[in-house]
Amino acid sequence: MKRTLGTCYYPEHWPREIWEEDARRMAEIGLTWVRIGEFAWKRIEPTPGTFDWAWLDDAIEVLGNAGLKVVLGTPTATPPRWMIDKHPDMIAVDAEGKPRKFGSRRHYCFSHEGYREECKRIVELVAERYGPNPHVAAWQTDNEYGCHDTVISYSDAARTAFRKWLSETFDGDITALNDAWDNVFWSMEYDSFDQIDLPNLTVTEPNPAHTLAFRRFSSDQVVNFNRAQVDIIRAHTDAPIAHNYMGRETAFDHYDVGEDLEISSWDSYPLGFLEDRAGATPEHQRKYARQGDPDFQAFHHDIYRAVGRAQGNHPQGAGRWWVMEQQPGPVNWAPYNPAPLPGMVRLWTWEAFAHGAEAVCYFRWRQAPFAQEQMHAGMLRPDSVDAPAAHEARMVMEELAATPDVQFQQAPVGLIFDFDAAFYWETQPHGAGLDYFMLVLEHYRALRRAGLSVDIIRPRPSEFEGYKAILAPGLMHMTDEVKQALADCGAEVLIGPRSGARNAHFRMPVPLPPAFPGLDVTVSRVESIRPDLPVALAGGGAVEGYLEEIEGSAETILETEAGAPVAKQAGRVTYMAGWGDAKALDRLVNMLCVRARIATVKMPEGVRCRETGSERFWFNHNTTPAETPVGILPAAGVLCETLD
Amino acid sequence: MKRTLGTCYYPEHWPREIWEEDARRMAEIGLTWVRIGEFAWKRIEPTPGTFDWAWLDDAIEVLGNAGLKVVLGTPTATPPRWMIDKHPDMIAVDAEGKPRKFGSRRHYCFSHEGYREECKRIVELVAERYGPNPHVAAWQTDNEYGCHDTVISYSDAARTAFRKWLSETFDGDITALNDAWDNVFWSMEYDSFDQIDLPNLTVTEPNPAHTLAFRRFSSDQVVNFNRAQVDIIRAHTDAPIAHNYMGRETAFDHYDVGEDLEISSWDSYPLGFLEDRAGATPEHQRKYARQGDPDFQAFHHDIYRAVGRAQGNHPQGAGRWWVMEQQPGPVNWAPYNPAPLPGMVRLWTWEAFAHGAEAVCYFRWRQAPFAQEQMHAGMLRPDSVDAPAAHEARMVMEELAATPDVQFQQAPVGLIFDFDAAFYWETQPHGAGLDYFMLVLEHYRALRRAGLSVDIIRPRPSEFEGYKAILAPGLMHMTDEVKQALADCGAEVLIGPRSGARNAHFRMPVPLPPAFPGLDVTVSRVESIRPDLPVALAGGGAVEGYLEEIEGSAETILETEAGAPVAKQAGRVTYMAGWGDAKALDRLVNMLCVRARIATVKMPEGVRCRETGSERFWFNHNTTPAETPVGILPAAGVLCETLD
Amino acid sequence: MKRTLGTCYYPEHWPREIWEEDARRMAEIGLTWVRIGEFAWKRIEPTPGTFDWAWLDDAIEVLGNAGLKVVLGTPTATPPRWMIDKHPDMIAVDAEGKPRKFGSRRHYCFSHEGYREECKRIVELVAERYGPNPHVAAWQTDNEYGCHDTVISYSDAARTAFRKWLSETFDGDITALNDAWDNVFWSMEYDSFDQIDLPNLTVTEPNPAHTLAFRRFSSDQVVNFNRAQVDIIRAHTDAPIAHNYMGRETAFDHYDVGEDLEISSWDSYPLGFLEDRAGATPEHQRKYARQGDPDFQAFHHDIYRAVGRAQGNHPQGAGRWWVMEQQPGPVNWAPYNPAPLPGMVRLWTWEAFAHGAEAVCYFRWRQAPFAQEQMHAGMLRPDSVDAPAAHEARMVMEELAATPDVQFQQAPVGLIFDFDAAFYWETQPHGAGLDYFMLVLEHYRALRRAGLSVDIIRPRPSEFEGYKAILAPGLMHMTDEVKQALADCGAEVLIGPRSGARNAHFRMPVPLPPAFPGLDVTVSRVESIRPDLPVALAGGGAVEGYLEEIEGSAETILETEAGAPVAKQAGRVTYMAGWGDAKALDRLVNMLCVRARIATVKMPEGVRCRETGSERFWFNHNTTPAETPVGILPAAGVLCETLD
Repeated sequence: MKRTLGTCYYPEHWPREIWEEDARRMAEIGLTWVRIGEFAWKRIEPTPGTFDWAWLDDAIEVLGNAGLKVVLGTPTATPPRWMIDKHPDMIAVDAEGKPRKFGSRRHYCFSHEGYREECKRIVELVAERYGPNPHVAAWQTDNEYGCHDTVISYSDAARTAFRKWLSETFDGDITALNDAWDNVFWSMEYDSFDQIDLPNLTVTEPNPAHTLAFRRFSSDQVVNFNRAQVDIIRAHTDAPIAHNYMGRETAFDHYDVGEDLEISSWDSYPLGFLEDRAGATPEHQRKYARQGDPDFQAFHHDIYRAVGRAQGNHPQGAGRWWVMEQQPGPVNWAPYNPAPLPGMVRLWTWEAFAHGAEAVCYFRWRQAPFAQEQMHAGMLRPDSVDAPAAHEARMVMEELAATPDVQFQQAPVGLIFDFDAAFYWETQPHGAGLDYFMLVLEHYRALRRAGLSVDIIRPRPSEFEGYKAILAPGLMHMTDEVKQALADCGAEVLIGPRSGARNAHFRMPVPLPPAFPGLDVTVSRVESIRPDLPVALAGGGAVEGYLEEIEGSAETILETEAGAPVAKQAGRVTYMAGWGDAKALDRLVNMLCVRARIATVKMPEGVRCRETGSERFWFNHNTTPAETPVGILPAAGVLCETLD
Repeated sequence: MKRTLGTCYYPEHWPREIWEEDARRMAEIGLTWVRIGEFAWKRIEPTPGTFDWAWLDDAIEVLGNAGLKVVLGTPTATPPRWMIDKHPDMIAVDAEGKPRKFGSRRHYCFSHEGYREECKRIVELVAERYGPNPHVAAWQTDNEYGCHDTVISYSDAARTAFRKWLSETFDGDITALNDAWDNVFWSMEYDSFDQIDLPNLTVTEPNPAHTLAFRRFSSDQVVNFNRAQVDIIRAHTDAPIAHNYMGRETAFDHYDVGEDLEISSWDSYPLGFLEDRAGATPEHQRKYARQGDPDFQAFHHDIYRAVGRAQGNHPQGAGRWWVMEQQPGPVNWAPYNPAPLPGMVRLWTWEAFAHGAEAVCYFRWRQAPFAQEQMHAGMLRPDSVDAPAAHEARMVMEELAATPDVQFQQAPVGLIFDFDAAFYWETQPHGAGLDYFMLVLEHYRALRRAGLSVDIIRPRPSEFEGYKAILAPGLMHMTDEVKQALADCGAEVLIGPRSGARNAHFRMPVPLPPAFPGLDVTVSRVESIRPDLPVALAGGGAVEGYLEEIEGSAETILETEAGAPVAKQAGRVTYMAGWGDAKALDRLVNMLCVRARIATVKMPEGVRCRETGSERFWFNHNTTPAETPVGILPAAGVLCETLD
Repeated sequence: MKRTLGTCYYPEHWPREIWEEDARRMAEIGLTWVRIGEFAWKRIEPTPGTFDWAWLDDAIEVLGNAGLKVVLGTPTATPPRWMIDKHPDMIAVDAEGKPRKFGSRRHYCFSHEGYREECKRIVELVAERYGPNPHVAAWQTDNEYGCHDTVISYSDAARTAFRKWLSETFDGDITALNDAWDNVFWSMEYDSFDQIDLPNLTVTEPNPAHTLAFRRFSSDQVVNFNRAQVDIIRAHTDAPIAHNYMGRETAFDHYDVGEDLEISSWDSYPLGFLEDRAGATPEHQRKYARQGDPDFQAFHHDIYRAVGRAQGNHPQGAGRWWVMEQQPGPVNWAPYNPAPLPGMVRLWTWEAFAHGAEAVCYFRWRQAPFAQEQMHAGMLRPDSVDAPAAHEARMVMEELAATPDVQFQQAPVGLIFDFDAAFYWETQPHGAGLDYFMLVLEHYRALRRAGLSVDIIRPRPSEFEGYKAILAPGLMHMTDEVKQALADCGAEVLIGPRSGARNAHFRMPVPLPPAFPGLDVTVSRVESIRPDLPVALAGGGAVEGYLEEIEGSAETILETEAGAPVAKQAGRVTYMAGWGDAKALDRLVNMLCVRARIATVKMPEGVRCRETGSERFWFNHNTTPAETPVGILPAAGVLCETLD
């Protein structure tokens, strides 16, 4: 696999006179890709039904002539103002019933039929025109589905669509829904699908089955919205189609979207995310303020590699994915927006490549000195002087030139990340702050502290093959098929907490969970605990926030200081009955690795490594040099060992 | 008085096949009571006007045949979905104007006439059918009035009813209202009652007289709603009628509701309340995470005993009351939901009996593995295995069998708790966090730290007889009759702060407060203070949050280190001019007890005692054994001394 | 200039029988001024078109006969309830779309044409009647524009008016607006002014150009609303017209309003402001709980002196201004409302005089024992006994009698405070908590810690004359004219951070800022930083929260410990590239003063001084005596030196 760089460009923002020079400088740096067009609907269709293609034809020509390949975005994330006049009810509604008005972006409800038709119309026109264009080498649908909490809408359109979705799900049988949701509780039974409202503004918590269904429906609306565009584009081109996902976005199932796309990509903003959504303590935020969290990006890289194999027939551990937007300097949107440490843009780029990225594109080419993102750095300053990112990109290009192409190999460890499981945890976390994404991330951190490369996998039997160990924390809903496949796959398997704790409609199963084949463990009681009240484990570590009381004949391998079992094991399966802290997870990972004969290397703090098929990369996320098994790494240092 | 146990059961949640076995097991444990029916409207009346009584007839028969007595709940807390079609405007509206929709429970506005008529209709049908049933030995109206902040509604129905209520209160004379409220301030005078809106969404604080009136109106709406049901039930049965109140619910006057009911009951969730509404510091929450606050439940027991004597002709210190729902294990609704320490369910049960409960019913029989409360423990696990609460209930039954029946006697100390006073403090707390409920609770804690049994009493002269000491902190509105009765009752009396600080319409009286007979004390100025800026008292302790400047010839018995008087005394009356911390309240309580010749015993931390007419109970709320005057009590230990 | 005292009185609140006695006691204390009428619309016009002038005629007569001068307020801040019946859509709407209902005060939208006409009508009637009255010696328009966040309204009336304002601003050319706002970004271009909505409830941040325009529009609406009243009053009287501004009110441009008024006045509540809006840490709030912040009031005094010279032809450093409402004791509206230290009312009064106040009026005469402000202290207690403020006012009167009249002189230092700059910072602060008001206040503190008297000035060339030093922190928008005038004015000039960082429509200029004549400094990159991550400066102090990367040939005079330049200097101009902490600002101020040959005196903590033309005042804001260059000042002490 060849590794390439790119950038994001908005010709409509700049005078025509400088396009050629911009393209020349992109090519000079060595960029391959340039993404354009994704916010330009108003410039393409200034008024309903009148079109201006000339500028876009021209821009693609200029870029292509400079040797660049264009990624063309569909402009559906920013419908023009006239669209609101045509479809006043197309805007989304928030959980409090307030409209989410025109004036920024993503001002649409995924369920609005009229807007969906408008999107199909414009995508058809764009794809018809540029599908055959030789410079357009890839496509992007819309932009950052879900950004600004836009998946879930409580609009009239959403209500209508939800009723339809439910009716289809339950074959029009309202009694089946009442039974599945156990609506007998609190007299919540419906007489018809038309009585079902969206699960917001209820007096107290709505039925979790109701919430879960609405989450799945909302996810499906994104999938269908995206599929409609893909189907149209594909009729006009063989170029691969991507979407650029956001970080820590769990409001829709990316795997489901990914099944319709050749390429998965995501927008990586390490410093913004550290302040905004990485769940970090203030101490951690201070320590990594200019470097970003050492695991957060890597975790997404591995997730999006998994999303990138949802469509294709990729080998285990592989998957087509890009960083479509890479933070190049300070951004504008986090609570605090520091500048990266010198070298971090290079580090982030190589880190993406180490995790299998085909391309890393910097957002954006030139910092726009206007509108919402005027404080978002680019590769160029607003006055067109090279910003630090341009220098670091040049350095990466030089290094790439000296690096052979690679193939990817399956990691020794598979870690299941499931969007549907995130819906379950968010529907009823049971204790404040209990979050599936964080649970899996903390397992990922423990694996990385042990120096391991990790594949993120889906909870599907076909994905379990070939791993020495599989971790499946927090899968609240597990089918019998998945349980059996995990039991049979030959890997050391870690499950729990909450594994199999609910059925497909959020009912707690009887016999009680986990009801796992070959494992005599029963969760007899569950408690959530104040985070400042850890339950210490004998031998070190603790459980924090969530703890199950378990019973059964399986061997106890972790217990509280008071002697209550916390983890039990039978055969190759281990059940962990609580939310382990870092020390507890390190102990679990080490036990698993010993049993699975996986070699581990204890990483110094802030240092991480990752193997490709032929390389082992080392990254130092610290502001100071770090001693590692391969020598001293400078601050923000990257080292690549060639593997035999 | 005989002491009994019970549980809450939902036959509609379980297959018909297991009802007999459930009933048999309830009886085997020794339960007397089983509450049913309170959320079953939809199963009783599946569509408007069609009824299915068979299942309920059957369930009552099964339970009764097992020797159990049924408490039958009216189903008005959960109107079916079709009710919303009939009365779309019956749902409540929150302070921000948002509807509180169908999808959980308590989705009604107390002021909606249409819904009130529907309630009367269904209660008439239920009471007519089951009033004569010999197995139905008690009734419950609705469920947890006010839970989920449902007393106060800003709906159109509430606005209409409020205008009517005001017009009646002021005999249709808008000038009388303007005068009483002093609406001349800020040109707020009305020309007619129809101009008066609800006191939400005003630009800044509304007139406190307006807010206070709305609070009283809202309380009256609950009283009237309940009375309508009671009147109907009573026409069909002589069985006692109860309501199950919630913890720390101060949005309506429970005494007023209690005047219509034979039995007061409340729902006691010690661990949920500690996290959710006990006003505890994180340190306190950690210390008592698995035991609950040592005073919060006892305080409610004593309040609800007082509510339980509101109707009847009970002797001082007595009153019919139950725990209708007792926490049996972890619950689902608090921010964190830990499991109780082993033994706590037994302790909570005996504690209720020590405070005079007739019955303690565990909520619920079997944990429901579905819907909102699926993580709420029961006496049985979802798989029907005995949960810890079943074992502890059995232990209590054995102990009860060995314990003679008791009578209750008046406590030496009366502590006034007044819901109307809570309305005053909430209307204008003057300083952030100043809360009447907490003020009285902190006085209660001090009394309990001194080993005293306490009666909660109402601010009514008839209730003042026979006490050696009466504490009346924070009664912002006191009639002349109440003042004189306190002055004359023969007890040592503690009043202040804010005593008599407002008239019946929230006006500050002149001459200035407290204007108490025989006590030359005048509050010349009032200040609220940052809680982190305590004002130290000479001799120990401090005032926190609220302090009055007082003058007058009464003897100063507490003063600040700077020499300003803080408490003054004349004859048997003491005025406390600030919010004392624990040490200051201990000093006051000890002074009072010495003067009133009440013996005190300093309790070890977390240990509490309580006397009935013939017993003295000791409770250890600690996680470790505690040394007490009667020996070492184990963690969660209960000891009962027989008094001569 | 003669210095006088006054109070605020509400004859309509009190029985007619006590008016003479009240007036006599006011005169006895020595008060000159009594403000009345500003909330009395309902008493003047009880029903639409019927009037009751008798009581007001009478009240003015009584007060005037006692030798008092009346300040008559227009009653437009509290339209009567019947007004809402006439104009239901006149109420403002908050950012979430909720109405701000009748029931308190300021329940109007500045943009409602119907209400504007009503205001003109009533002001015409009041001015016509009392303009000629010899006792009415000054006027006040409305009351506290903007109090309770009332400048900005999202009503339909505001939307209509905003579109008109925009159309006028851009000469009806929507393309000009799209270009100026760079609406090409995210396809935000409009086809007509009628498509432009208010910038609330957008999916994510609206275009900052949109927000800025709305802020300016909202400010203009206040200016126009006020001007309409002034024009009417002026037709009937020569008495000066004032408005009483609030503390830390940055939602409209006070200078613009001030251009229409003879007198600027503000309402000074030192203790309320410390808790409510002074941006203080809890430690600072504890330290000054009973004294108020040592700089917050002085800063406002100097700002309002500047506002007071906006209309007239006052010499530099002068300007007509009053304290229209002076806190006299505990207030009712802050989170905590402590009593002032004895002596503070006197200190606050003299502090105002030291900063040039003509008059200080205590709010209010007698504490009202009713309605919203019943816990707001007055000069009298509710029972008419003298409150402490009356005693302290008497003391001030005695001292005033012994003090000659003064003239004011220009301070050595001018500090620019610009309301438009506040709009810029609030539009896009870039980092959480970055606030222009606080930035300027922190510079002001540093100047005061150096013992300097300060003039607040506007960013206008005509105001730059005669200063030895001018500080202009944070002026995000600077015209070329202002830059040149600062460069040429002869003073030492301190600019930065963010100086000239945006054009008139919030675009970042290219060449990059500050683009200041004669100063080779370019801001190449900008970062906001967690406040708990200060960047240490070589030599002491730090930058906190905001830091620019700068380049250019100007001399570096401050740099980080790592060697990055933070402040640069060329000629008399210094650019500071970050938000300095107290130590850094002290260093900058000292450097500037040395260069400008301004003598400084290091103030002890909590001590401040201020010079008039002939006096130097010293104020001790501590609770303990303080050693100063002029001897030991007692707690709350004031000392006045006569200058030669």
